Amino acid sequence: MPVTLQLSVPYLVFLGDVPSKVYAKTALGLAQWAPELCVAQHRFPNCEIDTGLPDMSIAEAAHAGVKSLLIGSAPVGGAIQDNWIPSLLEAIAAGMDIVSGLHTQLNDYPELRDAALKHNVRLIDVRVPPENLPIGNGEKRTGKRLLAVGTDCAVGKKYTTLAIAKALKARGVDCDFRGTGQTGIMITGSGIPIDSVVCDFTAGAAETLSPDNDPEHWDIIEGQGSLFTPAYAGVSLGLLHGSQPDAIVVCHDPVREHIVGCPNHPIPSLQTCIETNLMLARLTNPAVQCVGVSVNTSAVAPESREALLQQIAQETGLPCVDPIIDGVDAIIERLLVADGPASPNKESLQGMPA
Amino acid sequence: MPVTLQLSVPYLVFLGDVPSKVYAKTALGLAQWAPELCVAQHRFPNCEIDTGLPDMSIAEAAHAGVKSLLIGSAPVGGAIQDNWIPSLLEAIAAGMDIVSGLHTQLNDYPELRDAALKHNVRLIDVRVPPENLPIGNGEKRTGKRLLAVGTDCAVGKKYTTLAIAKALKARGVDCDFRGTGQTGIMITGSGIPIDSVVCDFTAGAAETLSPDNDPEHWDIIEGQGSLFTPAYAGVSLGLLHGSQPDAIVVCHDPVREHIVGCPNHPIPSLQTCIETNLMLARLTNPAVQCVGVSVNTSAVAPESREALLQQIAQETGLPCVDPIIDGVDAIIERLLVADGPASPNKESLQGMPA
Repeated sequence: MPVTLQLSVPYLVFLGDVPSKVYAKTALGLAQWAPELCVAQHRFPNCEIDTGLPDMSIAEAAHAGVKSLLIGSAPVGGAIQDNWIPSLLEAIAAGMDIVSGLHTQLNDYPELRDAALKHNVRLIDVRVPPENLPIGNGEKRTGKRLLAVGTDCAVGKKYTTLAIAKALKARGVDCDFRGTGQTGIMITGSGIPIDSVVCDFTAGAAETLSPDNDPEHWDIIEGQGSLFTPAYAGVSLGLLHGSQPDAIVVCHDPVREHIVGCPNHPIPSLQTCIETNLMLARLTNPAVQCVGVSVNTSAVAPESREALLQQIAQETGLPCVDPIIDGVDAIIERLLVADGPASPNKESLQGMPA
Repeated sequence: MPVTLQLSVPYLVFLGDVPSKVYAKTALGLAQWAPELCVAQHRFPNCEIDTGLPDMSIAEAAHAGVKSLLIGSAPVGGAIQDNWIPSLLEAIAAGMDIVSGLHTQLNDYPELRDAALKHNVRLIDVRVPPENLPIGNGEKRTGKRLLAVGTDCAVGKKYTTLAIAKALKARGVDCDFRGTGQTGIMITGSGIPIDSVVCDFTAGAAETLSPDNDPEHWDIIEGQGSLFTPAYAGVSLGLLHGSQPDAIVVCHDPVREHIVGCPNHPIPSLQTCIETNLMLARLTNPAVQCVGVSVNTSAVAPESREALLQQIAQETGLPCVDPIIDGVDAIIERLLVADGPASPNKESLQGMPA
């Protein structure tokens, strides 16, 4: 039976000697989004970055029940640093799994591999997808699913879905965040790095990621890429088909002028992005609907922010928020209302064939 | 610089003791489509299958200048058979590369690996994509491209594109067939197995496969999957975007009732298939147009065949042929006419945003 990556919790967040916040995004994201999974941080004496988690030595963390050391630092070049090795070996000897999202793989370090074998712990590279993923079959699964999509890459899909999952849980709604990228996987303790899967298996991986569940359960699925990126649209489409979302939320950066890395490809209009995603999503879920727009307004002048969000809300007929400033309550209210028989934005679009 | 797979020609087609034509499809396809690349076949004494190529021993083939032994037999299970090994070792010792499209990889056999190292030849598994493929960038390339798309998998995309490439060459048009699957790669001697590429690189692989070329040169690109298959639509979209076709030909099986492997997913209408492909293809080539329909009529009653093709031609406004029976001249005439300023089916469809 193929399974998603499953990390052992709780974590010790390894910072080492990370020189600045820029290189500590994983650690800071973990402390922000999964504090309940993080027992402590481990820093070298000269480290000035602080996630706010308690400091612990490897031995203290082991005593406190930590099951995995997560590398929360991402140096330039994406390699394990030589001066980290003694700490990683100590954690392995203390029975911890080592978890990394870096480019170089843990298993490429013979001393780590040998120690892990000896102490029967796992070296987990969250960029490496699980083996034996199935081919997609398009069969409808039980339970409900929301997927973030975007007008481009890097427009807030992870943040938006984490915020939605958190807010749903606060309302007592049964739900899970489903990570599809390395940070999302670490934050949630499980997931599949979708963009590392061989393309024949992308949709099958997405099906595996959000399996059959209770009828009222929501999977909140982190999106990847965009249907409008010349490089990654296929990834986005495989994830869209395999997720068979009941609801999508579209994420957008209003000041971006073109697709990242593609100066000749403008950002699509929100309406085009929504319609294209809905049309293609209907192949595996004819009832899909869009329930909101998430806008990153960090580069918008404060006095223009409200008007921009109102304009988008009016044009799309959808709740429109910057999740960092406004929260996601407006989207959740639409989601829970839409989660009934009526669906105002379903009829007006041309569907895929039944 | 990343490159496509490049096989050394000419070939010795290895049949071994293949028991029936079903398992000799690769060998028969090679003899049919690339006779100029095939010096001979190599059969065990008990083999009754005949591609029509001259029989040669390994030594005779080496003497005749063969550069690669291609395994043209695909036994149940997809593994190299033990009784093939002596012949493969003899070919390696004679300086031939070994080329295989089987599931198990040549490099998994230590005796082959050691011999290949010793004799400085390559073991080429055509299911394994080249390393260092780039991320797609969506930049327009010079030269012209035709891509086969389909209403489902296995509807004749390879046959159709091979036939188009052959017919274009017969007319003196400068063109290349670009293989995207294992048989297509063997037939043409180069290519990229698109469905084996990690999904982040699918579009980049397709860009690499049909690089900048002379303005009047045509790349005829073998399609993969279909936008309407829940499992593989992402593969098809990555290939569509990376190929940035000027022309598409849609392939169709009129008696198929549902998508292969997906009983709850009906085959789309040809019109829907064409419109969806054109709409999505415009992201990387706004001038794309559909130039023909290729129909597999092998399961259609002979007395209904003509009427069916005429009906499809009328409904789509496109030339419609069964390439095995009718050839592809009608499509090529449309292609060469369409390859000018006017394009009758371009204006009537809603485009992606400019």
